[in-house]
Amino acid sequence: MDGFFITFEGMDGAGKTTQSRYLRDYLERKGYTVVFTREPGGTPIGEQIRDILLDPSNAGMSEITEALLYAAARAEHVRELILPSLQKGFIVISDRFLDSSIAYQGYGRNLGNLVTEWNEAAVQNVSPDVTFYLDLSPEEGISRVEARTDGKPDRMEQEEASFKKRVYQGFQSLAKENSGRIVRIDGSMKPEEIRDLIFAAVDERMLQR
Amino acid sequence: MDGFFITFEGMDGAGKTTQSRYLRDYLERKGYTVVFTREPGGTPIGEQIRDILLDPSNAGMSEITEALLYAAARAEHVRELILPSLQKGFIVISDRFLDSSIAYQGYGRNLGNLVTEWNEAAVQNVSPDVTFYLDLSPEEGISRVEARTDGKPDRMEQEEASFKKRVYQGFQSLAKENSGRIVRIDGSMKPEEIRDLIFAAVDERMLQR
Repeated sequence: MDGFFITFEGMDGAGKTTQSRYLRDYLERKGYTVVFTREPGGTPIGEQIRDILLDPSNAGMSEITEALLYAAARAEHVRELILPSLQKGFIVISDRFLDSSIAYQGYGRNLGNLVTEWNEAAVQNVSPDVTFYLDLSPEEGISRVEARTDGKPDRMEQEEASFKKRVYQGFQSLAKENSGRIVRIDGSMKPEEIRDLIFAAVDERMLQR
Repeated sequence: MDGFFITFEGMDGAGKTTQSRYLRDYLERKGYTVVFTREPGGTPIGEQIRDILLDPSNAGMSEITEALLYAAARAEHVRELILPSLQKGFIVISDRFLDSSIAYQGYGRNLGNLVTEWNEAAVQNVSPDVTFYLDLSPEEGISRVEARTDGKPDRMEQEEASFKKRVYQGFQSLAKENSGRIVRIDGSMKPEEIRDLIFAAVDERMLQR
């Protein structure tokens, strides 16, 4: 496995998409082949599952169904895109991965270790080389999402504040428990400051390989 | 729980749909409220998942994704339709349930006990009061499906014969291991003979409650 797998995690509104694009452009300028993807989704079947998960009209979905759908989409993502790309030596950048399921479904929906169990076969031992966790309080994330979606949030973004607080606690716990892999970054800093921290961390980690 | 839960299982082409409709009509004529449903599907979200599972253009789907999607649809089915209907005292008839996942994904896809584990939370201890397994050889099932679909089989029906043989072995094993719940019926008998056997078995089992 010669590739390098980078994930971005955090609450909606924390800046994952912006920062992951900065990093993609940076690495491409350096001459790397970068596969830029996201969860849920990243494959044709995964995007069909994404549509079900994020459709606001599916608001009544059970927690179990939700967690199994995320795992199903991830299994496809790993097998069809992430693993083959890493085997070819590419850099893979994913906007969300397994940590999001642990935070949102494990902590947020109180499903605990079931989420880890269900994802074990889905991820096939693929783990990020480095994860950037953009740490932004749920309150700040909510106000940023409201500002950008013009009142049209998706099903997950519509969730109540108490759910988002549990998700946030989940991310904080994950960052502490996986301090070797997860780089926690203060999401309230200026985007350019965050960007430079991420570029430096990636350069350092890729040199260490 | 005052309701009564009846499932039909077997290979495609075994006669499940025909027989489950006969039974629905019979019980409705007797004055029962019958909820008639199927898997995958049975709920709006479940039918969206069904569309992904059976779409022939999704032929490359991974085994893990497939099994997780069936479990996801079932979780919704149990929580939204089956459990509330049983709690109201209704009779629920489902064309396929958990046994199909064990046969198709556990045996057919060689996922074994993972399927049972993933479905544990999905079924919430709901188990059929009686299951009619229409036992038809894979060869006979294949020729019946070919006759009825006019060359347009769905993704699962398109699977190769060796897969269907493993599925068949799965159903045979399930029938042996659950002989109290599963009534095995020779699917090569005349439909009217099968129908009368099923009516008699249901009358007897409902009296015993």
